[in-house]
Amino acid sequence: MTISMYQASVPSLIRALNNLAAILEKGAAHAEAKQIDPVVLTNSRLYPDMFPLVQQVQIASDIARKGAARLAGLEAPKLEDDETTFAQLIDRLHKTTAYMETLTPEQIEGSEEKSITLPVGKDTMTFEGLPYLLYFILPNVYFHVTTAYDILRHCGVELGKSDYLGKP
Amino acid sequence: MTISMYQASVPSLIRALNNLAAILEKGAAHAEAKQIDPVVLTNSRLYPDMFPLVQQVQIASDIARKGAARLAGLEAPKLEDDETTFAQLIDRLHKTTAYMETLTPEQIEGSEEKSITLPVGKDTMTFEGLPYLLYFILPNVYFHVTTAYDILRHCGVELGKSDYLGKP
Repeated sequence: MTISMYQASVPSLIRALNNLAAILEKGAAHAEAKQIDPVVLTNSRLYPDMFPLVQQVQIASDIARKGAARLAGLEAPKLEDDETTFAQLIDRLHKTTAYMETLTPEQIEGSEEKSITLPVGKDTMTFEGLPYLLYFILPNVYFHVTTAYDILRHCGVELGKSDYLGKP
Repeated sequence: MTISMYQASVPSLIRALNNLAAILEKGAAHAEAKQIDPVVLTNSRLYPDMFPLVQQVQIASDIARKGAARLAGLEAPKLEDDETTFAQLIDRLHKTTAYMETLTPEQIEGSEEKSITLPVGKDTMTFEGLPYLLYFILPNVYFHVTTAYDILRHCGVELGKSDYLGKP
């Protein structure tokens, strides 16, 4: 018995982004309860040359959306990077997961050895599908979801591991 | 074509922990260069009720080691949680990956539907092998590796995404 490229990609990514949306809901509720301007939280970062929360969410959306699309041989819809509020960031995540739900197992099956070239900064990188999924898409999406969580925790938002992992 | 439970688990986990060991090496070098007591860094945390760096590393090791062992139907070797220095934490990661390298594809293949029960706090959780890997082991290990990275970045250690993702 084996698992498929679809099983190992789309459901995990949708779940991670849904959990991130719920984490952002808690951030918004915290700002309201404490009468903090929410933009203070969405602009927060852990170090001056790290990305703020807004970009952590945008990048998590991009890597998941574009990654799954590349495995399927498609081009992902472009999203403007113009969000500033919690509501806008949550909406971006909903648009992202709605797109990913349109991808079918048949489109992604068999992409293990598909050659995938993507821009990384000023360079391009080329992967086969399986290492692209396991060593680039998944760790990268979890990196940005975790860092978004860490930024909000560092700002005092009450979150726990179960918010990050989601319901079993 | 499909992928195996072994392919989707052990190599990704070993890679994540090797990257974490390299991140800790940079933390140790930073402490030495800046004449900071390294224990200040290993005890750092992002918020008072979050775990410090030491425990982030211990937990990443535990979830990877015990998770892979459970998929294989084995019991992972116990490690004492007594590390305080960078060198000791790096040694723990080396012991962890050395154990995981003893696991063979044959031991883990076919564990997709294996019933796995594990202690989580005071409770137990039961998973099938595939959701245990995709929705518990992988996101959890990436969570603790990323948070270790975020703690050191927050303390001023110069790290970049490529330290976290490792060499392609």
